Amino acid sequence: MAKSNHSVLIFALGGVGEIGKNMYVVQSGDDIVVIDAGLKFPEEEMLGIDMVIPDITYLEENRDKVRGIIITHGHEDHIGGLSYVLKHLKVPVYATKLTLGLIDAKLKEAGILNETKRVLINSDSEVVLGSMKATFFRVNHSIPDCVGVCLETPEGYVVHTGDFKFDQTPINNQTADLAKMAMIGDRGVLCLLSDSTNAERPGFTGSERSVGAAIKDVFSKATGRIVVSTFASNVHRIQQVVDAAVQFNRKLTVVGRSMQNVINISRELGYLFVPEGLIVESDEINKLPAEQVVILSTGSQGEPMSALTRMARSAHRKIDILPGDTVIIAATPIPGNEKYVARTIDQLSRIGAEVIYGGHGPNGTVHVSGHGSQEELRLMLNLMKPKYFIPIHGEYRMLKMHSLLAEQVGIPEENIFLLDNGDTVEISGGRARYGPKVHAGNVLIDGLGVGDVGNIVLRDRKLLSQDGILVVVVTLSKQNGTILSGPDIISRGFVYVRESEELLDEANRIVTQTLVKCMEENVNEWSSLKNNVKESLGRYLFEQTRRRPMILPIIMEV
Amino acid sequence: MAKSNHSVLIFALGGVGEIGKNMYVVQSGDDIVVIDAGLKFPEEEMLGIDMVIPDITYLEENRDKVRGIIITHGHEDHIGGLSYVLKHLKVPVYATKLTLGLIDAKLKEAGILNETKRVLINSDSEVVLGSMKATFFRVNHSIPDCVGVCLETPEGYVVHTGDFKFDQTPINNQTADLAKMAMIGDRGVLCLLSDSTNAERPGFTGSERSVGAAIKDVFSKATGRIVVSTFASNVHRIQQVVDAAVQFNRKLTVVGRSMQNVINISRELGYLFVPEGLIVESDEINKLPAEQVVILSTGSQGEPMSALTRMARSAHRKIDILPGDTVIIAATPIPGNEKYVARTIDQLSRIGAEVIYGGHGPNGTVHVSGHGSQEELRLMLNLMKPKYFIPIHGEYRMLKMHSLLAEQVGIPEENIFLLDNGDTVEISGGRARYGPKVHAGNVLIDGLGVGDVGNIVLRDRKLLSQDGILVVVVTLSKQNGTILSGPDIISRGFVYVRESEELLDEANRIVTQTLVKCMEENVNEWSSLKNNVKESLGRYLFEQTRRRPMILPIIMEV
Repeated sequence: MAKSNHSVLIFALGGVGEIGKNMYVVQSGDDIVVIDAGLKFPEEEMLGIDMVIPDITYLEENRDKVRGIIITHGHEDHIGGLSYVLKHLKVPVYATKLTLGLIDAKLKEAGILNETKRVLINSDSEVVLGSMKATFFRVNHSIPDCVGVCLETPEGYVVHTGDFKFDQTPINNQTADLAKMAMIGDRGVLCLLSDSTNAERPGFTGSERSVGAAIKDVFSKATGRIVVSTFASNVHRIQQVVDAAVQFNRKLTVVGRSMQNVINISRELGYLFVPEGLIVESDEINKLPAEQVVILSTGSQGEPMSALTRMARSAHRKIDILPGDTVIIAATPIPGNEKYVARTIDQLSRIGAEVIYGGHGPNGTVHVSGHGSQEELRLMLNLMKPKYFIPIHGEYRMLKMHSLLAEQVGIPEENIFLLDNGDTVEISGGRARYGPKVHAGNVLIDGLGVGDVGNIVLRDRKLLSQDGILVVVVTLSKQNGTILSGPDIISRGFVYVRESEELLDEANRIVTQTLVKCMEENVNEWSSLKNNVKESLGRYLFEQTRRRPMILPIIMEV
Repeated sequence: MAKSNHSVLIFALGGVGEIGKNMYVVQSGDDIVVIDAGLKFPEEEMLGIDMVIPDITYLEENRDKVRGIIITHGHEDHIGGLSYVLKHLKVPVYATKLTLGLIDAKLKEAGILNETKRVLINSDSEVVLGSMKATFFRVNHSIPDCVGVCLETPEGYVVHTGDFKFDQTPINNQTADLAKMAMIGDRGVLCLLSDSTNAERPGFTGSERSVGAAIKDVFSKATGRIVVSTFASNVHRIQQVVDAAVQFNRKLTVVGRSMQNVINISRELGYLFVPEGLIVESDEINKLPAEQVVILSTGSQGEPMSALTRMARSAHRKIDILPGDTVIIAATPIPGNEKYVARTIDQLSRIGAEVIYGGHGPNGTVHVSGHGSQEELRLMLNLMKPKYFIPIHGEYRMLKMHSLLAEQVGIPEENIFLLDNGDTVEISGGRARYGPKVHAGNVLIDGLGVGDVGNIVLRDRKLLSQDGILVVVVTLSKQNGTILSGPDIISRGFVYVRESEELLDEANRIVTQTLVKCMEENVNEWSSLKNNVKESLGRYLFEQTRRRPMILPIIMEV
């Protein structure tokens, strides 16, 4: 695709029209800069799929132009796809210290740590990427060391906010860099890409510090053990739990591998401060009196295999939840997880624990979002004062609402672009319009397989999950096509065999009848035989059961 | 189970520890009264299941004692299982006029209308049921004609609230019968069973009338067509939509079979008042100017096959959603449905409709719950002043919270019973304690099959849905066990075959090798052969793919 040297192309390969698998691209002439490389958790229909990453065919076809990948922060929906991308694209990765620490762990696991060029940046860095230059500015989010990106291009400045909120009393005392943002806005922003996650929420998102107060309030009242469950990556939240443990003379044990990893990396890099001797092993914790115990655990989303969920089911190797425990679920359910979280809360309540969750804290809430609400989104728009606006990081209705906010602060409707993955905005001679579409899509990862599970496989899994399968096997004579053995019918996931003998006997008879009829009518071709069997058997089963199991006729010849 | 003639047994066969499939039982000596017979929608793991109803083995074993089934109101989670129950238990059904109208439609569909004794009751009725006598009191809910039940037993009065809220400005001007409730409470209530659905919500649930105001506000501003989606059974909500259509000179069309059914029955029985000529067919509506159109539709929960969802996907036969339409989703997602509703909202937004949903109305909310919040639950407790309390109609944490509310109004903890389905409360000589457990459980309905899909079938469907299935067929010689044909490997839902030839070729080789080895070692028994194949093939596939498809070895002999 030939590009005028004086035009800039902006698009998403993931992250618009969805929450997850963020990957944004800014192309200026023969230079491409990628921002973020995340994963998305599978939709409900993606049976058996582990994760979804962006289809990077466009980048592979233009690999000579890709100058680097900038990562705004260390959340999975921004770094989770990086290892896969780097196996196909050998380009430098730019990230802040904590982000790089989390990235390195992933690259090491994927066996590509040594062959990847990783460049440490901070909010004062300047990075030259072909004809573009990147600078950064600090933002607040639910993980430390997050930045937004300001890309200088021949057409003007393109700004990407990263994920952000404005926390005026942040835990690490590092507010968002308002002065720098204002300066960038004053200098002139050609196009802004901004985080739309909470665009539907009025007001401001609360400060992380308020959660600390609520947590301490719970600690002050709890007489037994305290269990706190939160997102493993929320280092500020973990810091406040640590501080509360210290204040109330409790020891702390950490449960859940992802939580342990984040804590280790954060402590090592200086983002989390834990006094020596505070953290003890689970075995030690089990020997302490209840009022001296804090258990910090994963599982705030009710994930079936996570620590808290297993503890709630009494299925954790080392720790049980006991009557009298206080459990703080310092998170709210990500859309789609509401029933899992509700189930975990139920199980914990049944055991006799007191469960504090969501907005149910006695003194304020035990969780705040990491994303800015409407007032903060309007604040960002007014700081940046962009000519053009592309809402990102959100499902359609969030992008739509964000575009309305932009109109409210004075950006003309025709200067706002609502994109799907693969839609582009082309800016040339200072004017922006929709450009040509580029290839974009989902790559499904199942076990070790990347991209080999497509629609056909998913469709089959869906069918199998609904009414199961009937395998019909028959051995025919090569010479004259007579039935030598069978038909044998084996079912899985269809009916309880022991109670359905009549049904399956009759099914068997129908198959035999169909095959005999085919032979009499000289229908010998296997695909016709199979289709006839599928049809007659399927019809019978539906009449009898109103179910449509997959029917798999298999013919052996001897 | 022998019961003292002077003891009363109270328990649930469905509805506690869950939302759905309500069925409560009060047994006094040789008399059993059943309250409600609902269905529950399947959990996510119940693959391919259509609905779940209570296991009524206990009632079948005591069929001579069952005097009747009282139905408190016409919602599916209270009447949805009735047809199935009545096929096994021929007992009279007692219900109010609208409830009976909805029940009759179901009985007719099940072909048992004429053989069922149906008794019309109202809030002044008295019904003798063996040694018990039932009276009723009016409550408010999200469907008209709801009652609570007061059962006089030899031990005292047992009160069941039905589903309720206290709406002080109800649409039909029929407030809950506060005076009667107060009188019942004054006379003395032995045990109260009360609706726990909103026990976690502080304050009062809003009045239905406020929704009407919000709807009229939207109508006053909309310039194009208006689409309103709500629960088909919410007759009061439908009335307010009708009233708004009248006020703003719009015609109304109804889309969705369940909505049409409820409207027909409600109009016929005098519960819904619609001026002649207001409702028109969809074809007519399509000819009218946009500002004269209201479309009332099902699909407020994003149900895949419902009218609104199909309209959003441009898949409805008669009606499309158009840019400029205003869509009011006058409902909130039932827990578990959040993603479906979000998806529908996204699709509607993409089409260019303005979508008003949940708490996002410009002037107040376009939906209120039908269940009372904490202040109303405490009000009910204080009206009834029961000696003993059993929270019902809720998941565990809701029952738990309701029990805390009861303690707050002065009911001693030891007089409050938190039950699971099948747990009983036995009251004898005026004293209540936990009684013996009775059999309770889920009966799964899939297509026409009732109860034949059990754990094994569900487990198999789950396995199949994750990684699919590999069928391995081989024909052996009867005489010497040599391979005459095969092995043939057919996979479904595992890998995309065209891209996995190497994998499947090697799989084939491994199976052959395993069979040959078995023969050399004189392993002839089929189950051993199959297990060896499963093991060696399963190990290979997992090493290569990290997936565990179901492996189905089939041996034919000729």
